[in-house]
Amino acid sequence: MRKLHTCAVTLLLASLAALPAAPAVAQAHASGEHAAAPRDDEAKKRFVTEFYNKALNDKDYDAASKYLGDKYIQHNPTAADGPEGLKGFIEFLKARFPQQHNEIKHAYVDGDFVILHVHSVREPGTLGRAIVDIFRLENGKVVEHWDVIQDVPDPAGAKNPHGMF
Amino acid sequence: MRKLHTCAVTLLLASLAALPAAPAVAQAHASGEHAAAPRDDEAKKRFVTEFYNKALNDKDYDAASKYLGDKYIQHNPTAADGPEGLKGFIEFLKARFPQQHNEIKHAYVDGDFVILHVHSVREPGTLGRAIVDIFRLENGKVVEHWDVIQDVPDPAGAKNPHGMF
Repeated sequence: MRKLHTCAVTLLLASLAALPAAPAVAQAHASGEHAAAPRDDEAKKRFVTEFYNKALNDKDYDAASKYLGDKYIQHNPTAADGPEGLKGFIEFLKARFPQQHNEIKHAYVDGDFVILHVHSVREPGTLGRAIVDIFRLENGKVVEHWDVIQDVPDPAGAKNPHGMF
Repeated sequence: MRKLHTCAVTLLLASLAALPAAPAVAQAHASGEHAAAPRDDEAKKRFVTEFYNKALNDKDYDAASKYLGDKYIQHNPTAADGPEGLKGFIEFLKARFPQQHNEIKHAYVDGDFVILHVHSVREPGTLGRAIVDIFRLENGKVVEHWDVIQDVPDPAGAKNPHGMF
């Protein structure tokens, strides 16, 4: 009985060790110098979502920059490279599309990549654009970005009833 | 010693049980009625990549249809719903863009969603289009599709040197 009991405890401990870590809370305080690095998939989604909202919706470069790593490799051909490029893009939005709102419809994560499927409306009342943004994390910070952007067409002309999202 | 030995074997078995399953091979034979359901992330990527190549590059609806579930919910506003919509789209490609080639630059997977970042060239020598395709699997088959499509601009006018992929 003792042998079985010892083995059962050992098994329990082995099982617990094999469990995934509990979701880490991404503690991103605007007052802090840096946003804490996310540790699991849900935390990564939350981290990138916070970064995205601070940059594209709040249009607050200082808050967004806390989520950036030591570089920001930009693949959107209309945006300049680096943190300065993001800063310039946010200034452009504030000047030209101050009411722009980007709604994240779905977020996916695969390793160090977080993919956002977004409905972006630059001017209220317009159909807006469908966007997929892909962000790469390195050491828990955002370091690279790709996107694909398409105008949402008039749903009256669509060949199916499902919409783009 | 025997007790330790027994526990060590038990621990080993417990550890093995906790390991992720070995990558399942998606056995998709053109001769079979259906493509085998993928069981892990790598198999899901492989399964959707095979489906994608058969549909968009081989332009072979019969081969691609083996990867479809009991429905195909289409969100691309220019494509009709259902398997018949996919069939019609492939017929359109064969007639209008027989040389179209879609190169998958990166594939991501999150649960039952597989996301492909694609460079699509419909006519050789053109810059082509950047596409993100999102596929949802249900019971291991493709049942839903979203995409976002953008023309690749002339790299000479890009504000960064990295390209869209």
